[in-house]
Amino acid sequence: MKPERSLAEASAVLSSKTAACRARYFIEDVYPSVDGGRWPVKRIVGETIDIWADIFRDGHDVAMAALLWRKAGEGAWRREPLRHVSNDRWAGQLTLTEPGRYVFAFQAWTDDFATWQRDIRLKLEAGQDVGVELQEGRALLAGANDGSDGAKRIIAAATKSFDKKKAAETLLQEPLSAAMAEAQPRSDLTTSQSFPLTIDRERARSGAWYEFFPRSQGTVANQHGTFDDCIARLPDIAAHGFDVVYLPPIHPIGRTNRKGKNNALTAGPSDPGSPYAIGAEEGGHDAVHPELGTIEDFRRFVAACAEHGMEVALDFATQCSPDHPWLKKHAEWFKRRPDGSIKYAENPPKKYQDIHNPDFYCNNYMELWAAFRDVIHFWVDQGVRIFRVDNPHTKPFAFWEWLIRDIQSRDAGVIFLAEAFTRPKIMKALAKLGFSQSYTYFTWRTTKAEFSEYLSELTRYPEREFYRPNFFVNTPDILPVHLQTGESWMFKSRVALAATLSSNYGIYSGFELLEHEPILGKEEYLDSEKYEIRVRDWNRPGNIKPYIAELNRLRRENAALLQTADLRWLQIDDAEVIGFLKESPRQDNAVAVAIALDRHGPREFWMHFGDLQIGPPGSRRLVSYVENLKTGEQRPIQYGGIRLRMDPWQDPAILFRCH
Amino acid sequence: MKPERSLAEASAVLSSKTAACRARYFIEDVYPSVDGGRWPVKRIVGETIDIWADIFRDGHDVAMAALLWRKAGEGAWRREPLRHVSNDRWAGQLTLTEPGRYVFAFQAWTDDFATWQRDIRLKLEAGQDVGVELQEGRALLAGANDGSDGAKRIIAAATKSFDKKKAAETLLQEPLSAAMAEAQPRSDLTTSQSFPLTIDRERARSGAWYEFFPRSQGTVANQHGTFDDCIARLPDIAAHGFDVVYLPPIHPIGRTNRKGKNNALTAGPSDPGSPYAIGAEEGGHDAVHPELGTIEDFRRFVAACAEHGMEVALDFATQCSPDHPWLKKHAEWFKRRPDGSIKYAENPPKKYQDIHNPDFYCNNYMELWAAFRDVIHFWVDQGVRIFRVDNPHTKPFAFWEWLIRDIQSRDAGVIFLAEAFTRPKIMKALAKLGFSQSYTYFTWRTTKAEFSEYLSELTRYPEREFYRPNFFVNTPDILPVHLQTGESWMFKSRVALAATLSSNYGIYSGFELLEHEPILGKEEYLDSEKYEIRVRDWNRPGNIKPYIAELNRLRRENAALLQTADLRWLQIDDAEVIGFLKESPRQDNAVAVAIALDRHGPREFWMHFGDLQIGPPGSRRLVSYVENLKTGEQRPIQYGGIRLRMDPWQDPAILFRCH
Repeated sequence: MKPERSLAEASAVLSSKTAACRARYFIEDVYPSVDGGRWPVKRIVGETIDIWADIFRDGHDVAMAALLWRKAGEGAWRREPLRHVSNDRWAGQLTLTEPGRYVFAFQAWTDDFATWQRDIRLKLEAGQDVGVELQEGRALLAGANDGSDGAKRIIAAATKSFDKKKAAETLLQEPLSAAMAEAQPRSDLTTSQSFPLTIDRERARSGAWYEFFPRSQGTVANQHGTFDDCIARLPDIAAHGFDVVYLPPIHPIGRTNRKGKNNALTAGPSDPGSPYAIGAEEGGHDAVHPELGTIEDFRRFVAACAEHGMEVALDFATQCSPDHPWLKKHAEWFKRRPDGSIKYAENPPKKYQDIHNPDFYCNNYMELWAAFRDVIHFWVDQGVRIFRVDNPHTKPFAFWEWLIRDIQSRDAGVIFLAEAFTRPKIMKALAKLGFSQSYTYFTWRTTKAEFSEYLSELTRYPEREFYRPNFFVNTPDILPVHLQTGESWMFKSRVALAATLSSNYGIYSGFELLEHEPILGKEEYLDSEKYEIRVRDWNRPGNIKPYIAELNRLRRENAALLQTADLRWLQIDDAEVIGFLKESPRQDNAVAVAIALDRHGPREFWMHFGDLQIGPPGSRRLVSYVENLKTGEQRPIQYGGIRLRMDPWQDPAILFRCH
Repeated sequence: MKPERSLAEASAVLSSKTAACRARYFIEDVYPSVDGGRWPVKRIVGETIDIWADIFRDGHDVAMAALLWRKAGEGAWRREPLRHVSNDRWAGQLTLTEPGRYVFAFQAWTDDFATWQRDIRLKLEAGQDVGVELQEGRALLAGANDGSDGAKRIIAAATKSFDKKKAAETLLQEPLSAAMAEAQPRSDLTTSQSFPLTIDRERARSGAWYEFFPRSQGTVANQHGTFDDCIARLPDIAAHGFDVVYLPPIHPIGRTNRKGKNNALTAGPSDPGSPYAIGAEEGGHDAVHPELGTIEDFRRFVAACAEHGMEVALDFATQCSPDHPWLKKHAEWFKRRPDGSIKYAENPPKKYQDIHNPDFYCNNYMELWAAFRDVIHFWVDQGVRIFRVDNPHTKPFAFWEWLIRDIQSRDAGVIFLAEAFTRPKIMKALAKLGFSQSYTYFTWRTTKAEFSEYLSELTRYPEREFYRPNFFVNTPDILPVHLQTGESWMFKSRVALAATLSSNYGIYSGFELLEHEPILGKEEYLDSEKYEIRVRDWNRPGNIKPYIAELNRLRRENAALLQTADLRWLQIDDAEVIGFLKESPRQDNAVAVAIALDRHGPREFWMHFGDLQIGPPGSRRLVSYVENLKTGEQRPIQYGGIRLRMDPWQDPAILFRCH
């Protein structure tokens, strides 16, 4: 029993009374949040964001709570109301109209006057004497010294008119409750930690991407295409409803160790080389390959895209060809081998002799990081606001987190797509640290079970808060085995799956022409455009351009398809047909989709809606009828579903608007 | 393009190269943890604790990871190995042999030499020239300057014997790999945040509690019992297998506003008052009620319990009677009302005129907190190491967190049971902040659906990591409606449910005698012992003491029943019979239980084991036969289950050891 020691210890734990009071409220289970607030939740400008938390303190006093928010780095909190739902859960909403980084938090405090009012009402009902209680109420009035002038006036009036006989009446009136809620001290005001929130522009959440090699956009065989050729291609691409035109690197291509056709170790004299071997004497990451045109030509291309309602996405790959100016100017950014050579890229036993990776942890790594950052800024200055980042998973996480934050702090509308096909947790980590969108394994998912499992993973909480998939049906590197027979129903099925399952999707040019010639035994294109110029007839018979254009039109007309997270599976009594319902409840738009995964047909099956409800919050109801988005035909829901007939060769996808 | 500014900004974000490297590993999804490490996970001395996390960095280098742990506040980390399971998950184990507060963390780093070995092996297999690679390997040896002398010797020998022709052989040998793993620099060593862990002694996890009022332990009607009477009762209680003897407050009882029989507002001259009205002129929280005996008598009682293999649990209630010495000595600890009176406790419109609650946020609140802390210390000094805390939810969370941490920092074996019947999140908050055990809603759960839902909530993750239920069948305050008919099968069913569903359970004395007289229309005992002395014939005919003794014996013999979290429901084809399987896999003990919730019988039903597996980790298998723990009868599992016959009036509970 050593009270002195006890007190000293007590005061060591609790530095002040304030600290103890400030810990009075527990604020837990915050939604939405990723890893306890370590990473931002991603949402879109104008979207209504539901936010909630469990908020409570000891005892039975009347709790109050508010939602706080501000732009990251700005000083003053702004406030939104929270309402108590049940079981100590408080919920509110936030709608942010400007892209950027934000934080939100919760504040809770006790309404002493409301507590007093509740208790005295119970005592009055029980017929108890409340003389002393009324004096306590009056004392609460005297202690209120904050709030608006209006509140102060109401409180002053109540204090002045205080009279023993009418006291209860005076102190229980409504305006006084509100005035006291404002004006009384909040001695146990507790503020939670801050939770980050990234607000992106719409294009981060939805877009149909079209990828082409600029040098292949000419019309004469073997002749290097130019930005002017690209501009000439835009009306057709725009007419088919694409939002983003994505270009592999457009920079000068190295000559040393240049790769030949089909990745041959030596290039012929006319081989253009891989555009991923970035840098030559004409310049590095901030230069344009001379055969494509000038930087002014590129700017005209960007402007032409904008005129067609499209945007340019540029490849951002950090590797350097042996001829990149940095190898001489900044030799210290590259690792030397014991024999004095600079190490080229490799994935043992594979070797990439035409490229070197800078060392992101070289001694003056900050110079290197800043140089890459300035490359992005340079292209942002040319009008590019979307970057598809090549292999980000082989560069430090800290680099990307810093780079994206830096770029977006100047232009919050810049979008980064992570091209990482690697271990799932690394892909998620990149999305957490800042990438706006991510490539996925969609390209290799083909069965109903695979789609169910994979989409359930991507759209569950918290993945849906930070991982925005972009489904590519093919890429210059990937010709998946299921496309190699070149059957049109399969190309249609794949593009319909990509365009409806994910609000971001893309095709690499040639897909619409059903190109499907592989390197034997591999999932790669024969005569890959990465190593040669390909001039095509873009209106070749058998192309599926009108089919894709219709999908893109339906996407634009249906908000449900411009988001990925709100997805529910529909039971379809056919193991080779996948069915799902996508909804944008606040836009009152719900679309049901059935897509064949198998060529056989015609086939008939039931599509079940069961007890699924659709509609805006507060007026959710069962689906009563559906309208075929392609034919306009209306069908009532009968026996909980509809019976469908589908011929995959004619059209492997049926889309319904649900009513 | 302003490179100077860029660099300044880069350096502002990354204070040093080290900082960037140290963030290289992501360490996520840590198990076990509560609220991201905000609150400790609770485990028991000697228990094997499985621990894991997702650990990864960018790229494909060979990662290494270790588990760190230490006693909270101690300096040096100790280390346990982690193994890579799959998909970037690393797992390890920890067994702590001393109660106390600990923290654990993860460390990850890259094994550059192992990476180099992996790569050169692939190149050798592909028949590539590795001359430069070997030089790189030699350079790695030269850079290794840490590790044990043994490791240094191996590395020095390899360096010395380095010879171009045999280099690959030398550098790929096993001992060198291990030596380099120890000795090479760990430039990207990343340490996670710390995660707290509370290690309690066994009694925190399991115990059968027996509650009695000491003053009722005499043998003469209306005569106040003494500690000596209590001592005389111990052999019988111990013989029935109880672990904890729990006493309501034993302190002097106030005289002012003392309550009479059945909570009457005025006490008669011989009424003893409620022991919860703590404090009189004879003393306060650190004194013994004179009619019970002296503090020395109490110490003898504690010692007698220990001799019988039992422990004493004392009530800790913070309220003070109007006669408590503190009201004069520390008047400033109590809120004054405008009329100068000290406010008594109330729950409007209910009033508790015989007690006052101190103001836990009075100006000199630290003195008050320390005084209560010293009360606990006083009783710890008398040999009490379990405290049942009365109504903790109406006192500040910060007070309990501080108090429990303070007490346990001096004696880590002190156990606190939270008697809070309030909103679920508050009950969980008290468990999170430090209470070792918690009261529950078991007392009012009666249907199969209710048990299924409630136990699933208590045993799910993360609840099972911090919330240890203690199931009371009754308390002096609660005579649940289902006990009010006094049917023996129901008393047996309830105690069997409590004793098998939860590893901590308790009965309040009188239960074993089937006492069941309520205040009409209430779930309260008529003639409550809180307000009067009750002398009973503890061997009254019809008592179920042998039944309870057998349950307690089976608990002690089966580790599966001495833990709560590992619980699986068994399908039983009878809506009024509940079935479950509890297991302690590392002790190779599994017990299946069927308990009737309804009086009708005999009844027959199937108990299904389906594909449930039991057994120690690594050798899990289906249940092949079961052995009735009461009769010894063995039954093979047939058609996935067993057919049972049960007569609730004879025995509403069947327990099987599963093999």
